[in-house]
Amino acid sequence: MATLATLIDGKAIAADVRAEVKKGVAALKAEHGITVGLATVLVGDDPASHKYVSMKRKACAEAGIESFHHQLGADATQDQVLGLVRDLGADDRVHGILVQLPLPKQVDEKTVLDAVPLSKDVDGFHPLNIGALAMKGRDPEFRPCTPHGCIELLKRSGTEISGANAVVLGRSNIVGMPVALMLVEQNATVTICHSRTKNTPDLIREADILIAAIGRAHFVKGDWIKQGATVIDVGTNVIDDPSRKSGKRLVGDVDFDAAKERAGKITPVPGGVGPMTIAMLLQNTLRAAKKGVPSG
Amino acid sequence: MATLATLIDGKAIAADVRAEVKKGVAALKAEHGITVGLATVLVGDDPASHKYVSMKRKACAEAGIESFHHQLGADATQDQVLGLVRDLGADDRVHGILVQLPLPKQVDEKTVLDAVPLSKDVDGFHPLNIGALAMKGRDPEFRPCTPHGCIELLKRSGTEISGANAVVLGRSNIVGMPVALMLVEQNATVTICHSRTKNTPDLIREADILIAAIGRAHFVKGDWIKQGATVIDVGTNVIDDPSRKSGKRLVGDVDFDAAKERAGKITPVPGGVGPMTIAMLLQNTLRAAKKGVPSG
Repeated sequence: MATLATLIDGKAIAADVRAEVKKGVAALKAEHGITVGLATVLVGDDPASHKYVSMKRKACAEAGIESFHHQLGADATQDQVLGLVRDLGADDRVHGILVQLPLPKQVDEKTVLDAVPLSKDVDGFHPLNIGALAMKGRDPEFRPCTPHGCIELLKRSGTEISGANAVVLGRSNIVGMPVALMLVEQNATVTICHSRTKNTPDLIREADILIAAIGRAHFVKGDWIKQGATVIDVGTNVIDDPSRKSGKRLVGDVDFDAAKERAGKITPVPGGVGPMTIAMLLQNTLRAAKKGVPSG
Repeated sequence: MATLATLIDGKAIAADVRAEVKKGVAALKAEHGITVGLATVLVGDDPASHKYVSMKRKACAEAGIESFHHQLGADATQDQVLGLVRDLGADDRVHGILVQLPLPKQVDEKTVLDAVPLSKDVDGFHPLNIGALAMKGRDPEFRPCTPHGCIELLKRSGTEISGANAVVLGRSNIVGMPVALMLVEQNATVTICHSRTKNTPDLIREADILIAAIGRAHFVKGDWIKQGATVIDVGTNVIDDPSRKSGKRLVGDVDFDAAKERAGKITPVPGGVGPMTIAMLLQNTLRAAKKGVPSG
């Protein structure tokens, strides 16, 4: 009988990162009198977005980071959102600006994100950050939180990245493409698969590392997993589950029960990648604040 | 006996692109009185760099593009180079600025390239251009010339890119990484191989499209090529050849003689990718000049 995969405990690893950030935040206060600050901008009344922002603010409070919350109505104009982002850009108490996505239709996401000063782009989505990530000899100001969280899970679970065959399933701006760039940076051999890929199962069968970020429940079957591979499941898909009180259940892009029979290490959903996103956001915010400290 | 591969004639395809550019340059002159202009900056006295710049200026002249050449000594300071680039940035006759690399040691390449205004970055190496290339929903101002030339060779030779398995050998800033990003954009499934990759021959054996840009003479063996694959060889390596008067010969990263027995289409070296780089530079320069035309 096959040995079961080791679970990669995202909650525990995220807690480690948050503890490190908390220490750094306290040191910055003690040594330089700087209170680290994150501004959160929420436009409209999407319940999921409200929940995410509230989780982020709670995590800030626990790490000693001051959060400045700004709520605009669902009918806010693009100029109103832009004006707010620019004000926050000029506010010295604010080291990082988080604009919760998605934005309402009348507000252009690209224009708003581009208005976040590079020095406060703690989400890491600015094209200059992504460009620097793709280029040797350049270092981005900030790494996007979820893909950076995936890399931290690999490193802190003892997965060898250099020389590994890594398959990234999905090529989104927020996960797939940046995580592929980070894996190349870490000397993995990287294959980017997506909806147009013809032989996804065959490619995954060769993967020492699989990052699944395609947003389709249980898309990756257990027998696609290479024996001993490390599987990072970024998917968060809601499926029906009559056995639950809510009638629903959150599952990843990987058929976890089958995959854990073959993988060497695997992240659960929930409790894998999810907690890392906020932890890396806090880490980026501390990094932003540290950049303001005069050196020497 | 196997059929020999069709040669992808880079000279002929480049001549087509240059003829298209010449037409566009003439139209811009006739309709808007604009003379398209490219500034070339050469620092030091590297013979190869001199030759490249002179080829680029000759190609400009043939396409009706005015070129403004600036030569600085090998001992030029960074401030001198930066000052020149900034002057050219402010010069309305100059639509594109080409800084020939490499620069002497005392001049920081990154600082100089970042001083080229994005609107005149016809080399396409600005991190904002690379970032936009990596992101869905964004379009770079300019695409880097050599990788863009590879894509044009694929398209104009009738190679289906969407859904193809593409292997990019090499991850440099100027070829490997940007061509990988462009192939993803064109819906190929892309694998990025490099010096740390463990099973390069196996990966290449699955490639419908191979872009070799690793800079090692005849690194790719003939029996690694998938039957019918399209092979784009970016390598330009000088090897000894006693049968030549010069005692030397230019060869690609692929063992051409063996590969042409298996490939469906293949670029020769020289005469494949080489001519495309200048053609795409001219295309970018025309594009830059067109952006200055008031619309409507």
